[in-house]
Amino acid sequence: MSEVEEQGRRAKAAAVKLATMTTRQKDAGLEAMASALEADIATILERNSEDLAAGRSEGMSDALMDRLTLTEARVREMAAGLREVAALRDPVGEVVDGWRLPNGLEVRKVRVPLGVVGIIYEARPNVTVDAAGLCLKSGNAVLLRGSSSAVNSNSVLVDVISAAAEKAGLPADSVQLLRSTDREAAREMMRLHGLIDVLIPRGGAGLIKTVVENSSVPVIETGTGNCHVYVDEGADLEMAAAIIVNAKTQRPGVCNAAETMLVHREVAGAFLPRADRELREKGVVLRGDAATREIIPGAEEANEDDWYEEYLDLILAVKVVDGIDEAISHISRYGSGHSETIVTSDYRRAQRFVEEVDSAAVYVNASTRFTDGGVFGMGAEIGISTQKLHARGPMSLPELTSTKFIIYGEGQVRE
Amino acid sequence: MSEVEEQGRRAKAAAVKLATMTTRQKDAGLEAMASALEADIATILERNSEDLAAGRSEGMSDALMDRLTLTEARVREMAAGLREVAALRDPVGEVVDGWRLPNGLEVRKVRVPLGVVGIIYEARPNVTVDAAGLCLKSGNAVLLRGSSSAVNSNSVLVDVISAAAEKAGLPADSVQLLRSTDREAAREMMRLHGLIDVLIPRGGAGLIKTVVENSSVPVIETGTGNCHVYVDEGADLEMAAAIIVNAKTQRPGVCNAAETMLVHREVAGAFLPRADRELREKGVVLRGDAATREIIPGAEEANEDDWYEEYLDLILAVKVVDGIDEAISHISRYGSGHSETIVTSDYRRAQRFVEEVDSAAVYVNASTRFTDGGVFGMGAEIGISTQKLHARGPMSLPELTSTKFIIYGEGQVRE
Repeated sequence: MSEVEEQGRRAKAAAVKLATMTTRQKDAGLEAMASALEADIATILERNSEDLAAGRSEGMSDALMDRLTLTEARVREMAAGLREVAALRDPVGEVVDGWRLPNGLEVRKVRVPLGVVGIIYEARPNVTVDAAGLCLKSGNAVLLRGSSSAVNSNSVLVDVISAAAEKAGLPADSVQLLRSTDREAAREMMRLHGLIDVLIPRGGAGLIKTVVENSSVPVIETGTGNCHVYVDEGADLEMAAAIIVNAKTQRPGVCNAAETMLVHREVAGAFLPRADRELREKGVVLRGDAATREIIPGAEEANEDDWYEEYLDLILAVKVVDGIDEAISHISRYGSGHSETIVTSDYRRAQRFVEEVDSAAVYVNASTRFTDGGVFGMGAEIGISTQKLHARGPMSLPELTSTKFIIYGEGQVRE
Repeated sequence: MSEVEEQGRRAKAAAVKLATMTTRQKDAGLEAMASALEADIATILERNSEDLAAGRSEGMSDALMDRLTLTEARVREMAAGLREVAALRDPVGEVVDGWRLPNGLEVRKVRVPLGVVGIIYEARPNVTVDAAGLCLKSGNAVLLRGSSSAVNSNSVLVDVISAAAEKAGLPADSVQLLRSTDREAAREMMRLHGLIDVLIPRGGAGLIKTVVENSSVPVIETGTGNCHVYVDEGADLEMAAAIIVNAKTQRPGVCNAAETMLVHREVAGAFLPRADRELREKGVVLRGDAATREIIPGAEEANEDDWYEEYLDLILAVKVVDGIDEAISHISRYGSGHSETIVTSDYRRAQRFVEEVDSAAVYVNASTRFTDGGVFGMGAEIGISTQKLHARGPMSLPELTSTKFIIYGEGQVRE
């Protein structure tokens, strides 16, 4: 048996035990993990500095270095995150439906853990702790595969939290880091059908594509956000400007930030100069189609690729459209199914937009930046699903569960 | 563009239109399809006879020939099935959750169709019509890939129902049969990620494994049922005998029939002779472990493979176990996660069994044969999911939907 398969088997054995643990036991484990992180800050920062040194010598970009960096405050945030998850309602055991059949059988549909959750993620070490906390609270074992650039940080974090969890009575192997960081190990993990119940990739579009293409384990696609703001004819242009500025600039590096703005031809002349001014003040560069560049001559030229792009940067693609039909078909063609918004004052077009746009979150007159488990009031999230199976949009604890039917009888047989 | 991809694109275009059709429009389509089937019975039977002739000349087994055979009564049943689906509640548009955020945003979680459903199935032509009806009612387009042995039957059925659906106002291409029945076409269908939203294989374990291994489209695994009956110490043995006889023999060829019986050592001596007698009267052959064969010397010898086997036949694997722990771990090791039952009079063991057995349907004192969408009162089913993601157990109309978040604002931006 390979090392990866062996880790999968151990995760499955842990999952069987975790599935019947009480909320109190799981919460005690989370609290112990949080305390251990706080107690071991010095060790954690020391091991993190090894990753940072390696990253520096390999010429890692500033943005990636920042994501990789742990500080005392960031470790304390991870601990606080675990305590927040402990305070959330345990989804396991919830009776989501139930009824009595004509023959007297009592049918119950009950939430149960998924089993083993696999997470494949890129540089950010905080994912290690966040994902572990959410998986444990929902009764799942977790098998983590981080990137090699964070291997020392991830190893120490998993060592600290898994030792604490075990000491608090949770099964050994509830939280494991894939020991090997080579590509073959990740591919093998994707083929552990029957041992891993779901794989959640967290990272860029390339990572997600690789997992989708190669996995026999069911996958939940998350996070790619080519989000659109459509400014309709007759929209409140002050509101529209506030929304596009917020959606583009409030935090440009995240998946719910806007990447493309579509503007109705009738309002383009009045709106684009104003939007351009306000966006430029925030450092945003526009890339427009021909109609946009007639109005904003200083805008860069957008080509076909720009409509697909998730910039995650202070760049905004802009297109002038003939109306809501073109806006919806543009979103359908180029969008990633994450979050889109219409700015409008027209009832019928608002309704058409929310019905016809096929995305996880569709807004009327609000920023796309709200698509977030915490903001939606669902609690900390494990990711934002952009697929339609199992879960769509922000995924929190209930989305980390399955259900089973339990049927109580008194000897009934089928006629 | 290949023919398969072209069919996928047409299905997606149809799905966009179907998603916003009213229940009344969809029901009119289903009724038109039912009437057309009834009107064209002669043509349908004629084309079916071509498949039957080919099957006969290729030496197809009687069981398969029976599955392939259409009769006037069977075509009328398909039509009646479509009318039953039309009478079911439309899941699309259901607001499954909703709340107001502190900033005034109104969040709604609403059921929407999945989009395009792909079905890959074996010889039974009735799946063609049943699956099409369920997919259309839930607002999905469907791309069907039947087996080559049923190609004439499937073609005429799809021709008849899709023409009727289109005439009744549903989009063209709402129901399509994959034109090519070769293996490459099926493999290509499994890679239409982005065009097909979910693939549901319906057939034997080999078919399902092929789809899981090769698909980049999300898959729902269905149907493999290695179901267990565990007769506990202190069980009502009359009830236990009635349950195993029903679970094994009431319809042995279906996925919720029992394949293995586990008997507590304390009751084996009293129970096995009685069970053997009653099962033998129904033509069932026992395959037992050593302890079983000591009590029932006439039983065949079971080997390791028997514990994995889904016989779908009048054969029952039997094992004597030391108690509920061994029963649960046997089921965990060899089961397929479909349906299991405990026959017991002990409260604590009943509770342990339903909590610890990780299957789609777990029973106390009832036959496994009840796992069925219709019997559960959920309406006609598209299959029984044995996986944990998205849906588990019988899948009916709501399981053919996704959700999306719709958020109504008045200009809110994120702070």
